[in-house]
Amino acid sequence: MSKKVITISRECGSGGHTIGKLIAEKLNVSFYDKRLLELVVQQSGLTEDVIKEQGEYTTTSLLYTLATNISYSYNVNTKGNMILPDQIFAFQTEIIKGLAEKESCVIVGRCSDYILRNRDDCLHVFIHANMEAKKARIISEHRVAPEKAETHIKDREKKRSTHYHYYTDRNWGYAKNYHLCLDSGILGIEKCVDLILSALE
Amino acid sequence: MSKKVITISRECGSGGHTIGKLIAEKLNVSFYDKRLLELVVQQSGLTEDVIKEQGEYTTTSLLYTLATNISYSYNVNTKGNMILPDQIFAFQTEIIKGLAEKESCVIVGRCSDYILRNRDDCLHVFIHANMEAKKARIISEHRVAPEKAETHIKDREKKRSTHYHYYTDRNWGYAKNYHLCLDSGILGIEKCVDLILSALE
Repeated sequence: MSKKVITISRECGSGGHTIGKLIAEKLNVSFYDKRLLELVVQQSGLTEDVIKEQGEYTTTSLLYTLATNISYSYNVNTKGNMILPDQIFAFQTEIIKGLAEKESCVIVGRCSDYILRNRDDCLHVFIHANMEAKKARIISEHRVAPEKAETHIKDREKKRSTHYHYYTDRNWGYAKNYHLCLDSGILGIEKCVDLILSALE
Repeated sequence: MSKKVITISRECGSGGHTIGKLIAEKLNVSFYDKRLLELVVQQSGLTEDVIKEQGEYTTTSLLYTLATNISYSYNVNTKGNMILPDQIFAFQTEIIKGLAEKESCVIVGRCSDYILRNRDDCLHVFIHANMEAKKARIISEHRVAPEKAETHIKDREKKRSTHYHYYTDRNWGYAKNYHLCLDSGILGIEKCVDLILSALE
């Protein structure tokens, strides 16, 4: 199996970001999380704050917008033009496709598994964990208050799942979308890294 | 990670049964597929044919029964008593729990991941593959006619999925139900075996 791009989709607090970073270090390849944002900022003229919020959590669904009471259907870029979330997604899509074309790398989130689904040289990974493990991680590593941890996780996962479904017409966390799905709460971070590296061999 | 029971859930034609058997051989532990049927036959007094059909593919849903036009809501055991599919599931449940209690083993299918979900010493695995890989496998290994292969797979998976959902209230193939989900079409059978063994270490 010869794969040069690894996409990591992950539940909030599952350690998927850490796993992706460790994989990139071990393979000595680029790691795209916030760096992807910088590329979108450069190419779109949008501000980083707007993209950070829109890039993984929104849809253009009017019903969804009304239901969540967030008026983000339209945004203004730094050049004063109106930008739809669909256009942000289009920017991201082109950037992710371009990265996969030109280099080996690890990409975290942003529907990258779906965007690169037709390439044969990608390994698509999903990392999940039980609620207790996820709570422990975001409390200790992201300093979320213990009493708010579960709500924080559920809220982010709801948004991530809705965004994924809107742009891919797939169900987030469904095993068939990925080549490898791992429970980091049971297996542990190091074992997840080992298994992904082994899958690449 | 110390796991003594491995449950394997699998798509039709994914090679999950073969993977389970190879794991059992490598670990030198019991492998339960048809052997599980024999245990249910011994304890329930039902015939093997009835259990084979009912054990993984049916629900007691009246609507489902009417929709599929199969009158299997009630069956007669060898002692002449009426047996509900729920009772067959109950027999299987007790047997699977008993096996996990007394020995290390590999168990294929029959909602064993759900039945043993509260034990800490089990590794739950799901094996899937793309349609072309599954068709190739059932044509070559199970002698299904090429023109019938896709329908055969979809029919069995539909029944398996419905049965799983009915008894577990979970969605079949959803990554969170398992510790490890593997795409055997991309990774290959041997790599899947290696990854499962590595996850057990």
